[in-house]
Amino acid sequence: MGMKDAEPGTVRPGGRTARVRAAVLQAAGDSLAEGGFARLDLADIARRAEVGKTTVYRRWGTVTGLVADLLLDMAEQSLPRTETGSLLGDLKANARLVQRTLADSRQGALFKAVIAAATCEPKTAEALHRFYDIRVREWAPCVEQAVDRGELPADTDPHEVIRAVSAPLYYRLLTSGNALDEPAADRAAEAAAAAARAGVYVRREEAD
Amino acid sequence: MGMKDAEPGTVRPGGRTARVRAAVLQAAGDSLAEGGFARLDLADIARRAEVGKTTVYRRWGTVTGLVADLLLDMAEQSLPRTETGSLLGDLKANARLVQRTLADSRQGALFKAVIAAATCEPKTAEALHRFYDIRVREWAPCVEQAVDRGELPADTDPHEVIRAVSAPLYYRLLTSGNALDEPAADRAAEAAAAAARAGVYVRREEAD
Repeated sequence: MGMKDAEPGTVRPGGRTARVRAAVLQAAGDSLAEGGFARLDLADIARRAEVGKTTVYRRWGTVTGLVADLLLDMAEQSLPRTETGSLLGDLKANARLVQRTLADSRQGALFKAVIAAATCEPKTAEALHRFYDIRVREWAPCVEQAVDRGELPADTDPHEVIRAVSAPLYYRLLTSGNALDEPAADRAAEAAAAAARAGVYVRREEAD
Repeated sequence: MGMKDAEPGTVRPGGRTARVRAAVLQAAGDSLAEGGFARLDLADIARRAEVGKTTVYRRWGTVTGLVADLLLDMAEQSLPRTETGSLLGDLKANARLVQRTLADSRQGALFKAVIAAATCEPKTAEALHRFYDIRVREWAPCVEQAVDRGELPADTDPHEVIRAVSAPLYYRLLTSGNALDEPAADRAAEAAAAAARAGVYVRREEAD
Protein backbone atom coordinates (compact mmCIF):
# COMPACT_ATOMS: atom_id res chain seq x y z
CA MET A 1 0.00 0.00 0.00
CA GLY A 2 2.99 2.32 0.44
CA MET A 3 1.47 4.56 3.11
CA LYS A 4 4.57 5.09 5.19
CA ASP A 5 5.30 8.62 3.96
CA ALA A 6 1.73 9.88 4.12
CA GLU A 7 0.50 12.37 6.71
CA PRO A 8 -1.86 11.00 9.33
CA GLY A 9 -5.47 11.52 8.26
CA THR A 10 -4.70 11.59 4.55
CA VAL A 11 -3.94 7.89 4.21
CA ARG A 12 -6.24 5.83 2.03
CA PRO A 13 -5.69 2.54 0.28
CA GLY A 14 -4.89 2.61 -3.42
CA GLY A 15 -1.37 3.95 -3.90
CA ARG A 16 -0.15 7.26 -5.28
CA THR A 17 -3.23 8.23 -7.32
CA ALA A 18 -5.46 7.77 -4.30
CA ARG A 19 -3.03 9.71 -2.10
CA VAL A 20 -2.98 12.60 -4.56
CA ARG A 21 -6.78 12.62 -4.64
CA ALA A 22 -6.97 12.56 -0.84
CA ALA A 23 -4.52 15.48 -0.53
CA VAL A 24 -6.30 17.55 -3.18
CA LEU A 25 -9.76 16.91 -1.72
CA GLN A 26 -8.49 17.76 1.76
CA ALA A 27 -7.08 21.05 0.41
CA ALA A 28 -10.33 21.78 -1.47
CA GLY A 29 -12.35 21.16 1.70
CA ASP A 30 -10.05 23.41 3.75
CA SER A 31 -10.28 26.18 1.17
CA LEU A 32 -14.08 25.93 0.91
CA ALA A 33 -14.44 26.01 4.68
CA GLU A 34 -12.15 29.05 4.94
CA GLY A 35 -13.16 31.20 2.00
CA GLY A 36 -16.24 29.72 0.37
CA PHE A 37 -16.81 28.64 -3.21
CA ALA A 38 -16.04 32.04 -4.77
CA ARG A 39 -12.40 31.93 -3.62
CA LEU A 40 -11.76 28.35 -4.72
CA ASP A 41 -8.87 28.25 -7.19
CA LEU A 42 -7.24 25.16 -8.73
CA ALA A 43 -3.70 26.60 -8.62
CA ASP A 44 -4.12 27.45 -4.93
CA ILE A 45 -5.47 23.95 -4.22
CA ALA A 46 -2.47 22.39 -5.97
CA ARG A 47 -0.13 24.52 -3.83
CA ARG A 48 -1.92 23.61 -0.59
CA ALA A 49 -1.95 19.91 -1.53
CA GLU A 50 1.71 20.02 -2.66
CA VAL A 51 0.68 18.46 -5.94
CA GLY A 52 1.59 19.58 -9.45
CA LYS A 53 -0.81 22.14 -10.95
CA THR A 54 -0.95 20.16 -14.21
CA THR A 55 -2.12 17.06 -12.32
CA VAL A 56 -4.97 19.01 -10.73
CA TYR A 57 -6.05 20.67 -14.00
CA ARG A 58 -5.83 17.39 -15.93
CA ARG A 59 -7.72 15.34 -13.38
CA TRP A 60 -10.44 17.77 -12.21
CA GLY A 61 -10.50 20.38 -14.97
CA THR A 62 -12.64 22.95 -13.17
CA VAL A 63 -13.49 24.11 -9.67
CA THR A 64 -16.98 22.71 -10.18
CA GLY A 65 -15.58 19.31 -11.16
CA LEU A 66 -13.39 19.32 -8.06
CA VAL A 67 -16.31 20.13 -5.74
CA ALA A 68 -18.38 17.37 -7.35
CA ASP A 69 -15.56 14.89 -6.63
CA LEU A 70 -15.24 16.20 -3.06
CA LEU A 71 -18.96 15.59 -2.48
CA LEU A 72 -18.70 12.08 -3.93
CA ASP A 73 -15.77 11.36 -1.62
CA MET A 74 -17.66 12.80 1.39
CA ALA A 75 -20.60 10.52 0.62
CA GLU A 76 -18.28 7.50 0.29
CA GLN A 77 -16.37 8.36 3.48
CA SER A 78 -19.60 9.02 5.43
CA LEU A 79 -19.86 6.55 8.29
CA PRO A 80 -21.99 3.47 7.64
CA ARG A 81 -25.33 3.63 9.40
CA THR A 82 -25.76 2.47 12.97
CA GLU A 83 -28.13 -0.39 13.81
CA THR A 84 -29.61 -0.08 17.28
CA GLY A 85 -32.59 -2.41 16.92
CA SER A 86 -35.26 0.32 17.16
CA LEU A 87 -36.42 3.00 14.75
CA LEU A 88 -35.98 5.82 17.26
CA GLY A 89 -32.49 4.61 18.17
CA ASP A 90 -31.45 4.43 14.54
CA LEU A 91 -32.91 7.84 13.67
CA LYS A 92 -31.25 9.43 16.71
CA ALA A 93 -27.90 7.98 15.64
CA ASN A 94 -28.42 9.47 12.19
CA ALA A 95 -29.58 12.84 13.59
CA ARG A 96 -26.59 13.09 15.92
CA LEU A 97 -24.21 12.28 13.07
CA VAL A 98 -25.74 15.09 10.99
CA GLN A 99 -25.75 17.43 14.00
CA ARG A 100 -22.09 16.74 14.88
CA THR A 101 -21.08 17.26 11.26
CA LEU A 102 -22.92 20.58 10.88
CA ALA A 103 -21.84 21.81 14.35
CA ASP A 104 -18.17 21.12 13.53
CA SER A 105 -16.65 24.42 12.44
CA ARG A 106 -14.78 23.10 9.39
CA GLN A 107 -17.51 20.70 8.23
CA GLY A 108 -20.32 23.15 8.96
CA ALA A 109 -18.59 25.88 6.95
CA LEU A 110 -17.90 23.42 4.16
CA PHE A 111 -21.57 22.39 3.91
CA LYS A 112 -22.71 26.02 3.98
CA ALA A 113 -20.26 26.85 1.18
CA VAL A 114 -21.39 23.95 -1.01
CA ILE A 115 -25.10 24.62 -0.41
CA ALA A 116 -24.52 28.28 -1.29
CA ALA A 117 -22.63 27.33 -4.47
CA ALA A 118 -25.41 24.91 -5.43
CA THR A 119 -27.95 27.75 -5.47
CA CYS A 120 -26.24 29.25 -8.54
CA GLU A 121 -24.14 26.42 -10.04
CA PRO A 122 -26.31 23.70 -11.64
CA LYS A 123 -23.44 21.15 -11.70
CA THR A 124 -22.71 21.71 -8.02
CA ALA A 125 -26.44 21.36 -7.32
CA GLU A 126 -26.43 18.00 -9.14
CA ALA A 127 -23.41 16.83 -7.16
CA LEU A 128 -25.06 17.96 -3.91
CA HIS A 129 -28.28 16.12 -4.75
CA ARG A 130 -26.23 12.98 -5.44
CA PHE A 131 -24.49 13.37 -2.06
CA TYR A 132 -27.83 13.42 -0.25
CA ASP A 133 -29.21 10.58 -2.37
CA ILE A 134 -26.27 8.38 -1.35
CA ARG A 135 -26.68 9.26 2.33
CA VAL A 136 -30.46 8.72 2.21
CA ARG A 137 -30.01 5.33 0.54
CA GLU A 138 -27.44 4.34 3.19
CA TRP A 139 -29.90 5.03 6.02
CA ALA A 140 -33.16 3.96 4.34
CA PRO A 141 -32.87 0.30 5.48
CA CYS A 142 -33.42 1.34 9.11
CA VAL A 143 -36.91 2.47 8.08
CA GLU A 144 -37.50 -0.71 6.06
CA GLN A 145 -36.50 -2.78 9.11
CA ALA A 146 -38.89 -0.76 11.29
CA VAL A 147 -41.68 -1.58 8.84
CA ASP A 148 -40.71 -5.29 9.00
CA ARG A 149 -40.75 -5.17 12.81
CA GLY A 150 -44.23 -3.65 12.71
CA GLU A 151 -43.05 -0.32 14.16
CA LEU A 152 -44.26 1.61 11.11
CA PRO A 153 -47.14 1.27 8.64
CA ALA A 154 -46.50 -0.76 5.50
CA ASP A 155 -45.72 1.39 2.45
CA THR A 156 -43.90 4.01 4.51
CA ASP A 157 -41.51 5.86 2.17
CA PRO A 158 -38.06 5.29 3.76
CA HIS A 159 -36.43 8.18 1.89
CA GLU A 160 -38.98 10.69 3.18
CA VAL A 161 -38.39 9.57 6.77
CA ILE A 162 -34.61 9.91 6.47
CA ARG A 163 -34.92 13.33 4.83
CA ALA A 164 -37.30 14.41 7.61
CA VAL A 165 -34.55 13.74 10.18
CA SER A 166 -32.04 16.03 8.46
CA ALA A 167 -34.42 18.82 7.41
CA PRO A 168 -34.82 20.64 10.76
CA LEU A 169 -31.06 20.52 11.37
CA TYR A 170 -30.19 22.07 8.02
CA TYR A 171 -33.02 24.58 8.38
CA ARG A 172 -31.67 25.56 11.80
CA LEU A 173 -28.12 25.89 10.40
CA LEU A 174 -29.19 28.10 7.50
CA THR A 175 -32.02 30.24 8.85
CA SER A 176 -31.37 30.77 12.56
CA GLY A 177 -28.60 31.65 14.94
CA ASN A 178 -29.63 28.83 17.28
CA ALA A 179 -27.05 26.25 18.34
CA LEU A 180 -27.06 22.86 16.66
CA ASP A 181 -27.00 20.84 19.87
CA GLU A 182 -27.88 17.27 20.84
CA PRO A 183 -31.40 18.17 22.03
CA ALA A 184 -32.06 19.59 18.54
CA ALA A 185 -30.80 16.34 17.00
CA ASP A 186 -32.94 14.18 19.29
CA ARG A 187 -36.01 16.33 18.62
CA ALA A 188 -35.46 15.96 14.86
CA ALA A 189 -35.30 12.16 15.23
CA GLU A 190 -38.34 12.03 17.53
CA ALA A 191 -40.38 14.22 15.20
CA ALA A 192 -39.58 12.05 12.17
CA ALA A 193 -40.39 8.88 14.12
CA ALA A 194 -43.70 10.28 15.46
CA ALA A 195 -44.78 11.47 12.01
CA ALA A 196 -43.78 8.15 10.45
CA ARG A 197 -45.75 6.20 13.09
CA ALA A 198 -48.77 8.41 12.41
CA GLY A 199 -48.60 7.38 8.73
CA VAL A 200 -47.54 10.76 7.32
CA TYR A 201 -44.91 9.18 5.05
CA VAL A 202 -47.11 6.37 3.67
CA ARG A 203 -46.93 6.49 -0.12
CA ARG A 204 -50.18 7.84 -1.53
CA GLU A 205 -51.88 8.23 -4.85
CA GLU A 206 -51.30 11.92 -5.43
CA ALA A 207 -54.97 12.87 -5.44
CA ASP A 208 -54.70 16.64 -5.45
CA MET B 1 -51.36 59.76 -0.81
CA GLY B 2 -50.32 61.01 -4.23
CA MET B 3 -50.22 57.61 -5.96
CA LYS B 4 -51.45 58.73 -9.35
CA ASP B 5 -48.08 58.54 -11.07
CA ALA B 6 -46.95 55.25 -9.54
CA GLU B 7 -46.67 52.02 -11.49
CA PRO B 8 -49.13 49.26 -10.59
CA GLY B 9 -47.62 46.89 -8.05
CA THR B 10 -45.26 49.45 -6.59
CA VAL B 11 -47.90 51.53 -4.87
CA ARG B 12 -47.78 51.72 -1.10
CA PRO B 13 -49.18 54.29 1.27
CA GLY B 14 -46.79 56.92 2.60
CA GLY B 15 -45.92 59.27 -0.21
CA ARG B 16 -42.73 59.76 -2.17
CA THR B 17 -40.28 58.27 0.34
CA ALA B 18 -42.31 55.09 0.54
CA ARG B 19 -42.62 54.92 -3.25
CA VAL B 20 -38.87 55.29 -3.67
CA ARG B 21 -38.31 52.52 -1.13
CA ALA B 22 -40.83 50.26 -2.89
CA ALA B 23 -39.19 50.83 -6.29
CA VAL B 24 -35.68 50.24 -4.95
CA LEU B 25 -36.65 47.09 -3.05
CA GLN B 26 -38.48 45.75 -6.12
CA ALA B 27 -35.34 46.36 -8.21
CA ALA B 28 -33.14 44.75 -5.56
CA GLY B 29 -35.40 41.67 -5.46
CA ASP B 30 -35.38 41.42 -9.26
CA SER B 31 -31.60 41.70 -9.39
CA LEU B 32 -31.11 39.12 -6.62
CA ALA B 33 -33.48 36.68 -8.32
CA GLU B 34 -31.70 37.15 -11.67
CA GLY B 35 -28.03 37.27 -10.76
CA GLY B 36 -27.65 36.44 -7.07
CA PHE B 37 -26.02 38.42 -4.29
CA ALA B 38 -22.58 38.64 -5.93
CA ARG B 39 -23.90 40.74 -8.83
CA LEU B 40 -25.92 43.13 -6.68
CA ASP B 41 -24.76 46.70 -7.29
CA LEU B 42 -26.26 49.91 -5.85
CA ALA B 43 -25.73 51.94 -9.03
CA ASP B 44 -27.47 49.25 -11.09
CA ILE B 45 -30.35 49.11 -8.58
CA ALA B 46 -30.76 52.89 -8.79
CA ARG B 47 -30.91 52.67 -12.60
CA ARG B 48 -33.48 49.86 -12.55
CA ALA B 49 -35.59 51.69 -9.97
CA GLU B 50 -35.27 55.01 -11.87
CA VAL B 51 -34.11 56.64 -8.66
CA GLY B 52 -31.10 58.89 -8.14
CA LYS B 53 -27.90 57.04 -7.25
CA THR B 54 -27.21 59.48 -4.40
CA THR B 55 -30.59 58.69 -2.84
CA VAL B 56 -29.82 54.96 -2.86
CA TYR B 57 -26.29 55.38 -1.44
CA ARG B 58 -27.50 57.84 1.22
CA ARG B 59 -30.46 55.73 2.33
CA TRP B 60 -29.04 52.17 2.17
CA GLY B 61 -25.27 52.74 2.12
CA THR B 62 -24.27 49.20 1.17
CA VAL B 63 -25.60 46.18 -0.68
CA THR B 64 -25.82 44.37 2.66
CA GLY B 65 -27.89 47.20 4.14
CA LEU B 66 -30.21 47.09 1.15
CA VAL B 67 -30.75 43.31 1.43
CA ALA B 68 -31.46 43.69 5.16
CA ASP B 69 -34.15 46.28 4.35
CA LEU B 70 -35.57 44.02 1.61
CA LEU B 71 -35.89 41.16 4.10
CA LEU B 72 -37.58 43.45 6.63
CA ASP B 73 -40.03 44.56 3.95
CA MET B 74 -40.69 40.96 2.88
CA ALA B 75 -41.47 40.03 6.48
CA GLU B 76 -43.82 43.03 6.82
CA GLN B 77 -45.54 42.33 3.49
CA SER B 78 -45.89 38.61 4.26
CA LEU B 79 -49.57 37.70 4.37
CA PRO B 80 -51.14 37.60 7.83
CA ARG B 81 -51.71 34.06 9.05
CA THR B 82 -54.85 32.15 8.19
CA GLU B 83 -57.22 30.97 10.93
CA THR B 84 -59.05 27.79 9.98
CA GLY B 85 -60.15 26.64 13.45
CA SER B 86 -57.93 23.53 13.53
CA LEU B 87 -54.19 23.03 14.00
CA LEU B 88 -53.80 20.93 10.86
CA GLY B 89 -55.79 23.44 8.80
CA ASP B 90 -53.67 26.35 10.04
CA LEU B 91 -50.37 24.50 9.51
CA LYS B 92 -51.42 23.46 5.99
CA ALA B 93 -52.24 27.06 5.15
CA ASN B 94 -48.79 28.07 6.39
CA ALA B 95 -47.06 25.20 4.54
CA ARG B 96 -48.82 26.03 1.28
CA LEU B 97 -47.85 29.68 1.60
CA VAL B 98 -44.19 28.70 2.07
CA GLN B 99 -44.43 26.15 -0.76
CA ARG B 100 -46.02 28.61 -3.21
CA THR B 101 -43.39 31.21 -2.34
CA LEU B 102 -40.44 28.86 -2.81
CA ALA B 103 -41.94 27.27 -5.95
CA ASP B 104 -42.41 30.70 -7.56
CA SER B 105 -39.45 31.25 -9.88
CA ARG B 106 -38.69 34.84 -8.81
CA GLN B 107 -39.34 34.34 -5.11
CA GLY B 108 -37.62 30.94 -5.01
CA ALA B 109 -34.50 32.37 -6.68
CA LEU B 110 -34.59 35.36 -4.33
CA PHE B 111 -34.69 33.15 -1.23
CA LYS B 112 -31.89 30.95 -2.56
CA ALA B 113 -29.77 34.04 -3.22
CA VAL B 114 -30.33 35.48 0.25
CA ILE B 115 -29.72 32.15 2.01
CA ALA B 116 -26.50 31.74 0.00
CA ALA B 117 -25.38 35.28 0.90
CA ALA B 118 -26.18 34.65 4.57
CA THR B 119 -23.69 31.75 4.64
CA CYS B 120 -20.79 34.19 4.22
CA GLU B 121 -22.20 37.63 5.19
CA PRO B 122 -22.88 37.91 8.96
CA LYS B 123 -25.12 40.99 8.54
CA THR B 124 -27.21 39.27 5.90
CA ALA B 125 -27.43 36.23 8.19
CA GLU B 126 -28.74 38.47 11.00
CA ALA B 127 -31.31 40.02 8.68
CA LEU B 128 -32.39 36.57 7.48
CA HIS B 129 -32.76 35.32 11.06
CA ARG B 130 -34.93 38.38 11.83
CA PHE B 131 -37.08 37.62 8.76
CA TYR B 132 -37.79 34.09 10.02
CA ASP B 133 -38.31 35.30 13.59
CA ILE B 134 -41.01 37.71 12.39
CA ARG B 135 -42.72 35.00 10.31
CA VAL B 136 -42.53 32.45 13.14
CA ARG B 137 -44.02 34.96 15.61
CA GLU B 138 -46.83 35.73 13.14
CA TRP B 139 -47.84 32.06 12.95
CA ALA B 140 -47.11 30.97 16.54
CA PRO B 141 -50.61 31.88 17.83
CA CYS B 142 -52.14 29.05 15.79
CA VAL B 143 -50.15 26.64 17.96
CA GLU B 144 -51.11 28.50 21.16
CA GLN B 145 -54.78 28.27 20.13
CA ALA B 146 -54.39 24.52 19.47
CA VAL B 147 -53.01 24.14 23.01
CA ASP B 148 -55.99 26.11 24.36
CA ARG B 149 -58.40 23.90 22.41
CA GLY B 150 -56.74 20.80 23.88
CA GLU B 151 -55.39 19.66 20.50
CA LEU B 152 -51.78 19.79 21.75
CA PRO B 153 -50.02 19.17 25.07
CA ALA B 154 -49.54 22.15 27.38
CA ASP B 155 -46.05 23.67 27.18
CA THR B 156 -45.72 22.91 23.47
CA ASP B 157 -43.13 25.32 22.04
CA PRO B 158 -45.05 27.19 19.29
CA HIS B 159 -41.90 28.41 17.54
CA GLU B 160 -40.55 24.87 17.15
CA VAL B 161 -43.82 23.70 15.59
CA ILE B 162 -43.88 26.55 13.07
CA ARG B 163 -40.22 26.01 12.17
CA ALA B 164 -40.93 22.28 11.73
CA VAL B 165 -43.49 23.11 9.01
CA SER B 166 -41.00 25.10 6.94
CA ALA B 167 -37.91 22.92 7.45
CA PRO B 168 -38.70 20.07 5.00
CA LEU B 169 -39.70 22.56 2.30
CA TYR B 170 -36.47 24.54 2.54
CA TYR B 171 -34.45 21.32 2.81
CA ARG B 172 -36.16 20.05 -0.35
CA LEU B 173 -35.47 23.34 -2.16
CA LEU B 174 -31.78 23.38 -1.25
CA THR B 175 -30.71 19.74 -1.28
CA SER B 176 -32.83 17.94 -3.86
CA GLY B 177 -34.11 18.35 -7.39
CA ASN B 178 -37.61 17.30 -6.28
CA ALA B 179 -40.56 19.55 -7.05
CA LEU B 180 -41.97 21.72 -4.29
CA ASP B 181 -45.59 20.68 -4.81
CA GLU B 182 -48.76 20.77 -2.70
CA PRO B 183 -48.41 17.15 -1.49
CA ALA B 184 -44.97 18.13 -0.12
CA ALA B 185 -46.54 21.10 1.67
CA ASP B 186 -49.36 19.01 3.13
CA ARG B 187 -46.91 16.33 4.27
CA ALA B 188 -44.79 18.99 6.02
CA ALA B 189 -47.87 20.28 7.87
CA GLU B 190 -49.08 16.77 8.77
CA ALA B 191 -45.63 15.77 10.05
CA ALA B 192 -45.36 18.87 12.26
CA ALA B 193 -48.89 18.32 13.61
CA ALA B 194 -48.27 14.61 14.31
CA ALA B 195 -44.98 15.30 16.08
CA ALA B 196 -46.56 18.14 18.08
CA ARG B 197 -49.48 15.91 19.15
CA ALA B 198 -46.97 13.24 20.22
CA GLY B 199 -45.35 15.80 22.54
CA VAL B 200 -42.05 16.16 20.65
CA TYR B 201 -42.10 19.97 20.95
CA VAL B 202 -42.98 20.13 24.66
CA ARG B 203 -40.42 22.36 26.39
CA ARG B 204 -38.07 20.23 28.48
CA GLU B 205 -35.39 20.68 31.05
CA GLU B 206 -32.35 20.08 28.88
CA ALA B 207 -31.18 17.00 30.76
CA ASP B 208 -28.50 15.75 28.39
